[in-house]
Amino acid sequence: MNVPVILGLLGRLLIVYAGAMCIPLILAVFLGEWSIYSFLLAVIITGIPGLVLIRHAKADIKIGVREAFVAVAGAWILASLTGALPYWFANVVPTYIDAVFETVSGLTTTGASVINDVEVLPQSILLWRSLTHWLGGMGIIVLFIVLLPKTGMGSVLLFNAEVPGPMNDRVMPRIRDTATSLWKIYLIFTAICALLLWMAGMTFLDAINYAFATIATGGFSTKNTSIMYYDSLTIEMILTFFMILSGANFVIYLTVWRKKTMKAFRNTELIVYLLIITTATLAIAGSLWFNAGNSPGYSFRHALFQVATIITTTGYASADFDQWPSMTKIILLLLMFIGGSAGSTSGGMKVSRIILLVKATWAELKRGIHPRVVSSIKLDNKVIDAENLNKVGIFFFLYIVTFTGASIIIASTGLEPFDAMSAVAATLGNIGPGFGVVGPTTTFAGVSLLGKTVLTICMLLGRLEFFTLLIIFRPEFWRRRRVW
Amino acid sequence: MNVPVILGLLGRLLIVYAGAMCIPLILAVFLGEWSIYSFLLAVIITGIPGLVLIRHAKADIKIGVREAFVAVAGAWILASLTGALPYWFANVVPTYIDAVFETVSGLTTTGASVINDVEVLPQSILLWRSLTHWLGGMGIIVLFIVLLPKTGMGSVLLFNAEVPGPMNDRVMPRIRDTATSLWKIYLIFTAICALLLWMAGMTFLDAINYAFATIATGGFSTKNTSIMYYDSLTIEMILTFFMILSGANFVIYLTVWRKKTMKAFRNTELIVYLLIITTATLAIAGSLWFNAGNSPGYSFRHALFQVATIITTTGYASADFDQWPSMTKIILLLLMFIGGSAGSTSGGMKVSRIILLVKATWAELKRGIHPRVVSSIKLDNKVIDAENLNKVGIFFFLYIVTFTGASIIIASTGLEPFDAMSAVAATLGNIGPGFGVVGPTTTFAGVSLLGKTVLTICMLLGRLEFFTLLIIFRPEFWRRRRVW
Ligand SMILES: [K+]
Ligand SMILES: [K+]
Repeated sequence: MNVPVILGLLGRLLIVYAGAMCIPLILAVFLGEWSIYSFLLAVIITGIPGLVLIRHAKADIKIGVREAFVAVAGAWILASLTGALPYWFANVVPTYIDAVFETVSGLTTTGASVINDVEVLPQSILLWRSLTHWLGGMGIIVLFIVLLPKTGMGSVLLFNAEVPGPMNDRVMPRIRDTATSLWKIYLIFTAICALLLWMAGMTFLDAINYAFATIATGGFSTKNTSIMYYDSLTIEMILTFFMILSGANFVIYLTVWRKKTMKAFRNTELIVYLLIITTATLAIAGSLWFNAGNSPGYSFRHALFQVATIITTTGYASADFDQWPSMTKIILLLLMFIGGSAGSTSGGMKVSRIILLVKATWAELKRGIHPRVVSSIKLDNKVIDAENLNKVGIFFFLYIVTFTGASIIIASTGLEPFDAMSAVAATLGNIGPGFGVVGPTTTFAGVSLLGKTVLTICMLLGRLEFFTLLIIFRPEFWRRRRVW
Repeated sequence: MNVPVILGLLGRLLIVYAGAMCIPLILAVFLGEWSIYSFLLAVIITGIPGLVLIRHAKADIKIGVREAFVAVAGAWILASLTGALPYWFANVVPTYIDAVFETVSGLTTTGASVINDVEVLPQSILLWRSLTHWLGGMGIIVLFIVLLPKTGMGSVLLFNAEVPGPMNDRVMPRIRDTATSLWKIYLIFTAICALLLWMAGMTFLDAINYAFATIATGGFSTKNTSIMYYDSLTIEMILTFFMILSGANFVIYLTVWRKKTMKAFRNTELIVYLLIITTATLAIAGSLWFNAGNSPGYSFRHALFQVATIITTTGYASADFDQWPSMTKIILLLLMFIGGSAGSTSGGMKVSRIILLVKATWAELKRGIHPRVVSSIKLDNKVIDAENLNKVGIFFFLYIVTFTGASIIIASTGLEPFDAMSAVAATLGNIGPGFGVVGPTTTFAGVSLLGKTVLTICMLLGRLEFFTLLIIFRPEFWRRRRVW
């Protein structure tokens, strides 16, 4: 393990991150908010160690697999711990654990909050919450690759350890160009979304906050009642469009942009993703209309918004879906597990993994009839090899096992079984609100500190897709000699 | 597809099955119960078509993969439809669908009932319920192989399509000897269990019924309050012992019996299975003791019984576990998914599959560090090849997908989310009672007919482990020419 290189990388990260904290700091100065000192202190505590560590940085960074894993895991953990400081210093949360929960919830684009009344918070704190979404959405490491020249092949390893989903093209040439282009698209989407929200009647600051939270599929709101506060069809439609946009693979947009062709939209994952949204919306709207006796207008409007917000793992709420019929709740819970597309800012298992599992199942049934026939599994005309398929199956297993284990712990802290399961599904999938005591009209403030700690770990495991964090449990990881 | 051979096989099955119905018929005659005519009619309706079909039977049965799947699926469906007749004719259930539910619940050793008051039923009906458990437990097809000489290699295919769990030694030589020995062990266990229960104070008929239901890990009870009726530590201990015995791999007992050596007990699955029972018992007992304030005696007694009854997928209840703390409920729900061992009479995913998935996960983490190292996964010193491992992953996926899909449908019939999920988990895993409206002190009578139909399919899918039933959806299955 090349420790100096890792420390150098983490040092630069802290400096970049302290720079990001200056944005809400400037807003606080501009508005004369009492949170100035919280941000100032946080910037100092984050930036100084960064300056100390940067002495270890080398101009040319050559890192191996293990260094990449440690750097990414370390970056996320450091960003979580230091990003919590503004909340803690500003006294908007009861304990430091709550502050870390709020920060991890932000960076992982979960959007679960422990703050019951967000409307009394200073604008600078609200901006920091949304900004953590935005930084974590496209990936703090991906941002890092953009800002840092000459990372070489190390960047590819870093990129792969952070960007979610099973992507065939993950090891890309000219990774820095790709990362830069992805961030540009991300920035353009955010700007357009903010502009439209502003035009639809939001204040300028709210528009910025919601744009950050939407494009990152985060879900933090500046209002206690989320999107219900506005009760505006226009705002809901803008948000629905951008949520669905952000839940799809950004590499598709990149390809369309670079090659000036619409062919990239003929993507299996994208089509299935849109089909799931359509089917789930129809099923839920039908249930709201016929079972619960709502008007067809209400049913379709809120079914679509809730489906979009849950499958893209954003986690806004335009209605209190905790009061909806039992069936719609289980469908929403299922969508929490599916999540958006690979290479998007969303969480969950990702649509492409589900597609691969279904294809593998279908092939296995064939093998039951023709045991000697070997058939390969393809996605968009690319053969998926057995190793990657195996990894998808193991990911699925890890997801369910983590979900079950965490649910048991959360239930032991006093939540009802379904509430506990929804709390875990909502954090592991980086969605935000669940059902019952952690429903769309409530917060995670009532969960015990043990519960919050477990859910914080779930958010990180979900965002970094297990392997990057779990790999440290292998004894080989800690051996001194590089044996491969 | 060789249809005459399949029809011949099914004809013999119907005759054997009509013969089994004669046992409760004789009891009804002996006790002078009004259910005589129900059984008589059922024996005629089952036996006559059997005699007609048997004309197609051939002395030497040579069947292929497809014939084996159709025969096993057909046997289970026919046994379910005809086995329902006595209940329907005796008017102990409101509709034929209820009667089929009760029969499938019996044959699949689920033990979920739609009859609210079983204590008013004739003894012959109670015996038929328990007998369906016993016939389905070791497998109606396995029984068939015993009774039918000269099935040749076809028996192996039939055996593999019915016996649960991922067994490496499934294709065994001298399959008829193996099947016969398994049934002998099964019979001996049942006899000893019945004897002990009789000595412990049960009536003779109750002892027989409970022995059938216990060794088959079924769970039908002759009392409305299950084992709570007796409130006897002795009976609970006898049942616990035999449930745990029946939840382990019968091939282990076979090996011990044949080779006169205890070495067969050094089996990874058996050890993990016992470890899970111990851990779960301690966790639940702890929660009952400290959280719910019960006495340590009560806590350990009922924790162990409930853990044994759920993990072995029997489904008795010695306490109303629906009233237990939230955490214990989720642990029990988890045990429903795990189930017993491969080659046992239990349902669920099976412990060995979980072991293989954990080992595959551990190996995958290693591959993350050493991408070029290929490591093989072993269980009891036998290498598990990639194909079988893949099948385990797909089985896990099918299990979760079926669980989710069925839960949505059951929730749409009006059950609360957690109740709906527990109803599906309890039927898919062949356990019996779930939580809430389908809890240990209630029955499935309140579920709608649509719900009962879906749960009936879940029971069959769980018992035949998906592939045997789902394979018919492949187009190749229906092609005339044998292309392999
Ligand atoms: K998200
Ligand atoms: K069972």
